[in-house]
Amino acid sequence: MILLALDFGGTKHTAGVLEADSLGWLARQQVFSPPDADARYDLETMLSLARRLLAGASPAAIGVSFGGPVDAERAMVRLSHHVPGWEDTPLGAILEAEFGAPVKVDNDANVAALGEGRFGAGRGFRSIFYITVSTGVGGGWLLEGKLWRGSDCMAGEIGHTVVQPDGPLCLCGKRGCVERLASGRYLAQDARDRLSEKPQSGPVLWDEFSNNLETLDAKAISSAADRGDPLAIELLERSAWAVGVGVGNAANLVNPQRFILGGGVTKAGGLWWDKLRQTARQTALPEVQFEIVPAELGDEAPLWGAIALALDLIQTS
Amino acid sequence: MILLALDFGGTKHTAGVLEADSLGWLARQQVFSPPDADARYDLETMLSLARRLLAGASPAAIGVSFGGPVDAERAMVRLSHHVPGWEDTPLGAILEAEFGAPVKVDNDANVAALGEGRFGAGRGFRSIFYITVSTGVGGGWLLEGKLWRGSDCMAGEIGHTVVQPDGPLCLCGKRGCVERLASGRYLAQDARDRLSEKPQSGPVLWDEFSNNLETLDAKAISSAADRGDPLAIELLERSAWAVGVGVGNAANLVNPQRFILGGGVTKAGGLWWDKLRQTARQTALPEVQFEIVPAELGDEAPLWGAIALALDLIQTS
Repeated sequence: MILLALDFGGTKHTAGVLEADSLGWLARQQVFSPPDADARYDLETMLSLARRLLAGASPAAIGVSFGGPVDAERAMVRLSHHVPGWEDTPLGAILEAEFGAPVKVDNDANVAALGEGRFGAGRGFRSIFYITVSTGVGGGWLLEGKLWRGSDCMAGEIGHTVVQPDGPLCLCGKRGCVERLASGRYLAQDARDRLSEKPQSGPVLWDEFSNNLETLDAKAISSAADRGDPLAIELLERSAWAVGVGVGNAANLVNPQRFILGGGVTKAGGLWWDKLRQTARQTALPEVQFEIVPAELGDEAPLWGAIALALDLIQTS
Repeated sequence: MILLALDFGGTKHTAGVLEADSLGWLARQQVFSPPDADARYDLETMLSLARRLLAGASPAAIGVSFGGPVDAERAMVRLSHHVPGWEDTPLGAILEAEFGAPVKVDNDANVAALGEGRFGAGRGFRSIFYITVSTGVGGGWLLEGKLWRGSDCMAGEIGHTVVQPDGPLCLCGKRGCVERLASGRYLAQDARDRLSEKPQSGPVLWDEFSNNLETLDAKAISSAADRGDPLAIELLERSAWAVGVGVGNAANLVNPQRFILGGGVTKAGGLWWDKLRQTARQTALPEVQFEIVPAELGDEAPLWGAIALALDLIQTS
């Protein structure tokens, strides 16, 4: 019995075919879409990739991670914030018609949570909150070992919880949400703005990027912080603080056993993790216990979660 | 078949005996403990009250609401913040030995959530968050119709989520948590402090309480706000704002269908509810849907929740 696992990213798409019993890969491949690709292009690309990898075999079940809001009950994509044309696409029905197998589709944060929960840093834990701190900040819950999606499939949006009501304005329209203070995109934007105003606030960054400020990204901020740049350190500490308040608040509200954090910004090193853990511990009540650990599966978490979705289909059928 | 439902409050205790099929009361009574009562006193009071109400009959199951942290799995009271001597009391085992019936015990916020969910404002909804805004601020989750307690039975502590990190200091050690900004105790304390400093900031309140400031309570603040007192209005708006950010954050994180709010401060009227709803709506993402409704069962929510606990015992046995 074989399974098909698909991960629709923004521009990076992965398909894999594996043996259900051994969970061994039979084939897998990653492809990239051009930045101007639309939904039709991405869907065709993925379908032909899957056909090639399956090589005529029929999957017993299909699990799909999609980078955008999904109605998981109906296996419908609601939209993509990055790729045009995905509005109300019945992705589950399309794949089922194409490959003749049952399909589960969910958004990437939920699917990654499932991947980390079953195969990564959440193995053996009954309740976890997976958080990705990357270009944006999102999350997914596993409660009693199962995905908790919320009543509109909108649970897990820790990035848009408010932790500093008089903080800077986010694109979401609110001030001081976690994403505005902690995400890679805003870290880079704030560093560029501060350097333009006051180059001496970040001498290491300025030295490296004064001629090409637009290329300054979150990774460069981590690296400059390692070399003692005060602006880089300040911004990373603010990022970790915001995620820490968000994690502490989530611990008080839901009291999961583990918080599992992945995404590019979490690679910033000890400064970031120390500030995060300290802030979360101070924010949560002393009686509320939890661990904060790094994700283990990296970029592969959605693909492993898609496998878990497919496994659930053959185990309940 | 009859059920026994017990509600251990701070100083107010209620016992009820009812018919399991009709849910009709056979007997119920409320008793008050003196302020210096200890755990032994309260327990003996409740046991003799229950014996009297049962009048020799044997209950099929017992549900208990306790006003303090409880290990629900083991039916153990961890402690009471108000009454000394409750530390690590096996309340379930004591009641089971006394009345020969299975017992479920949980803390009052969880049990009240269950009461509102099954018999009050949450009837017919699969996911609710019940919040009490009273002397303190607490809450309880029903997810998929069942209590979500969290891994340490600590879920629901919305009162100690931080919404204004540079706000005033709470007894919990943090600044700007919802309880510090919204609870009846702190509303009254802040009104007294402000009036002491600057009587003209709250002319209606000052007129009424200048000679006995220590009797000023949250109810007096509501009443003064109705008569246009600017300090009372400011404090109530701050309270509603803080609960609103907490609710909006909880909506983004967990996405329940309904928020059900009870407790004395929620009786403050339209000003409070309007500000609460507006703030929660602004804090939650536009795609996150929810309703905020008043609790229906008032002080009886824990007793009805205790009935639900007892019903669960006979339905699963």
